[in-house]
Amino acid sequence: MTETDPLVLFMPSGKRGRFPVGTTVLDAARQLGVYVESVCGGRATCGRCQIEVQEGHFAKHGITSAEEHISPLGAKERRYAEVRTLPAGRRLSCSATIKGDLVVDVPPDTVVNAQVIRKATSDRLIERNPAIQLCYVEVDEPDMHKPLGDLDRLNVMLERDWGFRDLLVASHLLPKVQGILRKGNWAVTAAIHRDVETDRPHLVALWPGLHNEAYGIACDIGSTTIALHLVSLLSGRVIASSGSANPQIRFGEDLMSRVSYVMMNPDGREAMTRAVRQAINELIEKACIEGGIDRQSILNATFVANPIMHHLFLGIDPTELGQAPFALAVSGALDIWARDVDLSLNPGARVYMLPCIAGHVGADAAAATLAEGPHRQDRMMLLVDVGTNAEIVLGNRHRMVAASSPTGPAFEGAEISGGQRAAPGAIERVRIDPATLEPRFRVIGVEPWSDEEGFAEASETTGVTGICGSAIIEVVAEMYLTGIITEDGVVDGTMAARSPRILETGRTFSYLLHQGAQTITVTQNDVRAIQLAKAALYAGIKLLMEKLGVDSVDTIRFAGAFGSFIDPKYAMVLGLIPDCDLAEVKAVGNAAGTGALMALLNRNHRREVEETVRTIEKIETALEPRFQELFVNAMALPNKVDGFPNLAAAVTLPERRGGGSDTGDGGGRRRRRNRE
Amino acid sequence: MTETDPLVLFMPSGKRGRFPVGTTVLDAARQLGVYVESVCGGRATCGRCQIEVQEGHFAKHGITSAEEHISPLGAKERRYAEVRTLPAGRRLSCSATIKGDLVVDVPPDTVVNAQVIRKATSDRLIERNPAIQLCYVEVDEPDMHKPLGDLDRLNVMLERDWGFRDLLVASHLLPKVQGILRKGNWAVTAAIHRDVETDRPHLVALWPGLHNEAYGIACDIGSTTIALHLVSLLSGRVIASSGSANPQIRFGEDLMSRVSYVMMNPDGREAMTRAVRQAINELIEKACIEGGIDRQSILNATFVANPIMHHLFLGIDPTELGQAPFALAVSGALDIWARDVDLSLNPGARVYMLPCIAGHVGADAAAATLAEGPHRQDRMMLLVDVGTNAEIVLGNRHRMVAASSPTGPAFEGAEISGGQRAAPGAIERVRIDPATLEPRFRVIGVEPWSDEEGFAEASETTGVTGICGSAIIEVVAEMYLTGIITEDGVVDGTMAARSPRILETGRTFSYLLHQGAQTITVTQNDVRAIQLAKAALYAGIKLLMEKLGVDSVDTIRFAGAFGSFIDPKYAMVLGLIPDCDLAEVKAVGNAAGTGALMALLNRNHRREVEETVRTIEKIETALEPRFQELFVNAMALPNKVDGFPNLAAAVTLPERRGGGSDTGDGGGRRRRRNRE
Repeated sequence: MTETDPLVLFMPSGKRGRFPVGTTVLDAARQLGVYVESVCGGRATCGRCQIEVQEGHFAKHGITSAEEHISPLGAKERRYAEVRTLPAGRRLSCSATIKGDLVVDVPPDTVVNAQVIRKATSDRLIERNPAIQLCYVEVDEPDMHKPLGDLDRLNVMLERDWGFRDLLVASHLLPKVQGILRKGNWAVTAAIHRDVETDRPHLVALWPGLHNEAYGIACDIGSTTIALHLVSLLSGRVIASSGSANPQIRFGEDLMSRVSYVMMNPDGREAMTRAVRQAINELIEKACIEGGIDRQSILNATFVANPIMHHLFLGIDPTELGQAPFALAVSGALDIWARDVDLSLNPGARVYMLPCIAGHVGADAAAATLAEGPHRQDRMMLLVDVGTNAEIVLGNRHRMVAASSPTGPAFEGAEISGGQRAAPGAIERVRIDPATLEPRFRVIGVEPWSDEEGFAEASETTGVTGICGSAIIEVVAEMYLTGIITEDGVVDGTMAARSPRILETGRTFSYLLHQGAQTITVTQNDVRAIQLAKAALYAGIKLLMEKLGVDSVDTIRFAGAFGSFIDPKYAMVLGLIPDCDLAEVKAVGNAAGTGALMALLNRNHRREVEETVRTIEKIETALEPRFQELFVNAMALPNKVDGFPNLAAAVTLPERRGGGSDTGDGGGRRRRRNRE
Repeated sequence: MTETDPLVLFMPSGKRGRFPVGTTVLDAARQLGVYVESVCGGRATCGRCQIEVQEGHFAKHGITSAEEHISPLGAKERRYAEVRTLPAGRRLSCSATIKGDLVVDVPPDTVVNAQVIRKATSDRLIERNPAIQLCYVEVDEPDMHKPLGDLDRLNVMLERDWGFRDLLVASHLLPKVQGILRKGNWAVTAAIHRDVETDRPHLVALWPGLHNEAYGIACDIGSTTIALHLVSLLSGRVIASSGSANPQIRFGEDLMSRVSYVMMNPDGREAMTRAVRQAINELIEKACIEGGIDRQSILNATFVANPIMHHLFLGIDPTELGQAPFALAVSGALDIWARDVDLSLNPGARVYMLPCIAGHVGADAAAATLAEGPHRQDRMMLLVDVGTNAEIVLGNRHRMVAASSPTGPAFEGAEISGGQRAAPGAIERVRIDPATLEPRFRVIGVEPWSDEEGFAEASETTGVTGICGSAIIEVVAEMYLTGIITEDGVVDGTMAARSPRILETGRTFSYLLHQGAQTITVTQNDVRAIQLAKAALYAGIKLLMEKLGVDSVDTIRFAGAFGSFIDPKYAMVLGLIPDCDLAEVKAVGNAAGTGALMALLNRNHRREVEETVRTIEKIETALEPRFQELFVNAMALPNKVDGFPNLAAAVTLPERRGGGSDTGDGGGRRRRRNRE
């Protein structure tokens, strides 16, 4: 290419280069490393290589109409547009050739067949570069003069047309190649798997004729819930999403009880492995039915999970993870056959497991990191996934640390007297009137607040059955703000004089939140449980901040279900998280699932997460004496921790009245030396 | 290294280099690419790295005693010699260091444990460089500060101590690594498989502690017989050999009847695949019992077979091989999991299938070529394996051609009136007295010839039951030499006047070879069958010679059972093979099995056979009009073929008498143009 050749700019990647007039747009993209799908290899039959040409962008070059700069619709494209559909403005990049300067949009997805289209699982635009590539080839017929085998002649064409050299072949295809080639009248579509660019490509599936679709699964195996997305690997579209309870719950509600089950039962590990694999297979079946596709079309799957789920899924005994030194059997990323983990997909389907960060910080945290990308930015990001353990990642492109903190199950409503899962009937929002100490609350499944008209009627079916994780945070925060509990977390008995809702229960006091078919109180023990949980979380975060030598973070991301429900304001009031501009505190939902999806659609993201996990510094809270100090100090409301002005007072909430404590900066009272 | 450093010469490879004083002999070998085994990684515990130091060879350098040039026996070696055995003169190359110029012998095998030692299957010295390497490593214990997984810490050591980067891991090991590391107290032996040097190494097996042995299988799947060797991959020793009838015989005696069986029976292919795999498993079991080893210790296997056996073993429908264009489904070499072809070996065992040359010239011919090595020499070699088809390879390092010729089953005794397999009771040698036309013969299992004293008694148990392949050649040649048949192959009825053994049978005549419990005659049809077979063989050979433009060959190798029994002199009399110095006509037995063994013990031989098969020019006799002409002309006794003086007359045999034809050069009578 020369200085005078047309300049072509590809969006959104921004890659650009000059190409001789007559170059196809597809060739130009390939030369620049811009990923544009193509199954048919430039025959204008698959329709996968669609692009759009922008107009007017090159104004300074005198472009006003793109038509002058790209070849007109040719015979092949017209034929494709007639037989299939080519949306207005779209061109087939294998046929359209460059005539002058161009700005080319590579669309995030390309509709080829009428599909059941789901709302994308995330607004994120994931650039595609999947580990699976479909390649249509026309193979020479057998020739007695050149007695290469059928498979070997196929390989010749995969090298000639697609550049795949020294192909490996999945064994199960050996007996099938012969018949498929003949059925396709010597035209076939091969699925080539190559994850690491320098590895030999692997022929994993083969179909007669043009096979124009391949699917993938991105799955997050949570302790409680398994969620997966079924995605087109060729268009990037999410075809269906499904989720179900993890059937391992019957072996133990939380992670540690499942580890105990393995320790106590000789067949425990095997039973749980079988259960989770079966549940995943059922979920895949459900997604396939919903999306109207054959599970044989699924060629790749990515999995994320916490370390114990990760091990159980792989059939590895998780016992070691239940005791120091919390040794993972496998921490690095894995690329294995789907059939080796009993998944009923295409027999050539591969599974990619994202890497675990540490014994308590799993592939789910790694995937959430990949999705939220602290390593891609300069701003200091705190990423928190709260479960029985809180997985915490802190850092930016320069340095990252991660730890797990033993929050226990209080945040999930367990070990709380009125606690329950988020379900209809559960209280999810709470406000306490600072003057009267009367509560008002909102119940899942019921539109009006408890003090609004129509609540009684609206809540008739659901009832008021308990209090879920988000409301526990709120009620304790409100109790603190209204002075019902002191900064030490004691339910103040003297308040009983002001309100009949302060009940004496033995030596301690409780707050009566609701009296009905079910009486819901917040006991001293409940407050203590929340104090312990928040202290553990905050101490873990603070420890990491000290490791990085920072005393504030720029942005906070709550991953997971807990994060989706709690109100960041209250989290800050209680001191769960350090101060941060409230606008920068975001719940990001199933970020782990999004990370799995990114790794599914683009193998560069696999290298990215592997490298990121390698560079993250792993902190084991159990080994840090400083953690204990931070923990003790974080028991107070708000935290008595150095250098972190707690913004509770600044947050727009009902003003705190009564009670004793100063709501201002709780720091500075006791100076501590940072031991690191 | 500098000019003044000691010079070290390794034998038998002849590789040499200068190394600083103090370098271990093992390091020197590795730097020169000389393969010396080591499992323990230089800890002087496995004993695999034994070498011998030659004395006196460097006389010109003033070496008289090697002792001055190599370090004395150190503490580690002495300990090894006490605990195990270190034969006199042997040193452990990981401990012995270079002091001065040295000639080092790398012994072909190294005894470490008392093994059942079998005579080597061939005298050939096979330099070892197996695809499997055992690597002992000591792995860091889990560390909460560095939470790498067990497997990942193992990988760190395999890279640090053995240089294996980016290891792939066999899925079945994932659940086991944890337990094996702990059982070995963090010391383990890993089996790494890497066939192609540039591929990522693959962790395929793992044992606690030092595991000092790995075995392999080299197997030749013949239509009639399956033969295999069980070999130590670390010492190169053949531990046991076993063979059995191919159970597919029950589906069809010869190849084509088995293909027919597949065509006629929907489950035929599957049944035959199952049968052959089961037979191989049983043979492996037998060899393991004989060698006293556990089949779990078998990590690698190589297979050779003719194309139809090759396909059936792999589970591929062979129907296409039974009809033009004789298309192989797979011709190239394959490297697959042993479990994918139902072999019960170590779950991480790999199978290497040698490449096929063409639709009728299989991996067995490729392996025989590897073993005999025409491509490694300047002399023109003819390599023939006679079965129902004759597989013929001709050439030298400059150019090679191959073809298959349809000899039919006559040479194997089928379609011959008195024909039978080589078994006790079968006539295997025949001479006919030229004066009296009386025969004398020898019977398998009977020491004296039929005209010698004691024959009657000696043959009482066996009887005289038929005539086997080698004797058919001889009797027809003798009938020709004594004038009983003419050069056109007609049993000469006029000879009946000279001997009552010439019998009139309808319109033709027969020769009465033996009258007893069983009457054995050689009929006109028998002679015709042999004529057709030898004409096919000779025409195939001649076609290849014409392709290469040569009119003689330097050496002839008969591979396979047929070659082992026939007398080259008679083969030449009948015109099965072109003229050649008789001393250069050799039966090489199961050369295919030897080739399989070479590919098992040294992966460089795999690349060699792959490259050789690629460069061999494949000739399809069915497409060559010239073949028909050659065939017709080769019907005569001896062949009427241009330019090939048949040496029948020169061979030291009873002089030919009577009959009509000139026994001299049958060539030159009819000049033909070479159509190529």
